[in-house]
Amino acid sequence: MKEIMAVIRMNKMNQTKKALADAGIPAFVAREGYGRGKGLVNQAVLDGAAAGNEEAIALLGTKGRLYPKRIISIVVPDDQVKEAVDALISVNKTGQAGDGKIFVMPVSDSVRVRTGEAGEAAIV
Amino acid sequence: MKEIMAVIRMNKMNQTKKALADAGIPAFVAREGYGRGKGLVNQAVLDGAAAGNEEAIALLGTKGRLYPKRIISIVVPDDQVKEAVDALISVNKTGQAGDGKIFVMPVSDSVRVRTGEAGEAAIV
Amino acid sequence: MKEIMAVIRMNKMNQTKKALADAGIPAFVAREGYGRGKGLVNQAVLDGAAAGNEEAIALLGTKGRLYPKRIISIVVPDDQVKEAVDALISVNKTGQAGDGKIFVMPVSDSVRVRTGEAGEAAIV
Repeated sequence: MKEIMAVIRMNKMNQTKKALADAGIPAFVAREGYGRGKGLVNQAVLDGAAAGNEEAIALLGTKGRLYPKRIISIVVPDDQVKEAVDALISVNKTGQAGDGKIFVMPVSDSVRVRTGEAGEAAIV
Repeated sequence: MKEIMAVIRMNKMNQTKKALADAGIPAFVAREGYGRGKGLVNQAVLDGAAAGNEEAIALLGTKGRLYPKRIISIVVPDDQVKEAVDALISVNKTGQAGDGKIFVMPVSDSVRVRTGEAGEAAIV
Repeated sequence: MKEIMAVIRMNKMNQTKKALADAGIPAFVAREGYGRGKGLVNQAVLDGAAAGNEEAIALLGTKGRLYPKRIISIVVPDDQVKEAVDALISVNKTGQAGDGKIFVMPVSDSVRVRTGEAGEAAIV
């Protein structure tokens, strides 16, 4: 069992949901976050910081700036990892910096709270 | 050492905090997120989308809808995993769809920033 | 490859970003959350709860209170873990309760969406 955590552009959420559903992965958790890679500049943050907005100032750094991002987590059986990663890439790859990252992490167990089912039965 | 990540109903936070504290697990991190299982419908999101709200529209998909959820992370020694999972189920199981999921993930190390303590000493 | 998840004070974000960049780790994801250790009291939450604010009431518990926190995730090669943890401690250690926690978790794989690069090539 693996958790796949993907950091993607906010405007890709809808297509990503559809691509995952089409790949047979309906269940997931999404959350908002801020991310950066290596050297991006977010003009809105710069403008906010110039205007004295504290949240914007906090986003500034010495290298690169933070962008608002969506962070998606899905948990899939090992044999579905490749399919899920391919689905994520298919809709999130634009070729531009900022396309995001995908991390695959081991999961020891899953439990469906409603039924108490554990293991792969809890995630499919 | 394991991380237990639970996706629960927002209105179960208070009971969940109490149940974990009663089980001897006072420390945790909570965050907001959106989740879906397999086929839930959120009328508030549908209404928002019908009214043209972009955030609501982004939540729509081809299967199921996204619900606001709380995501809790706790890190416990291996021998406390069962107790923590049982505590989470005890207050979050209603028998209705949407009760949530619990994921158990391996943790290599923990550090308490204030003291530099590492390993299990950092989490108890 | 390891994920380093750090729960830190909100007002330490800027210094943390700089310390990580100085350590050669420019890429990361940050998100907001609420956390508690063992017994902290947040007067703003107490005041909000006294005024009947439901969100504040939900933050109350039987032991300790929840503080707004920043949650940072970075993914680094194994041989950069110590450097990253040291950088995090160097700017986040005040010696006061609430300095935060650092968790190190195994990562099976990483993929850069823009190029399809996998493994360590995706994170450096």
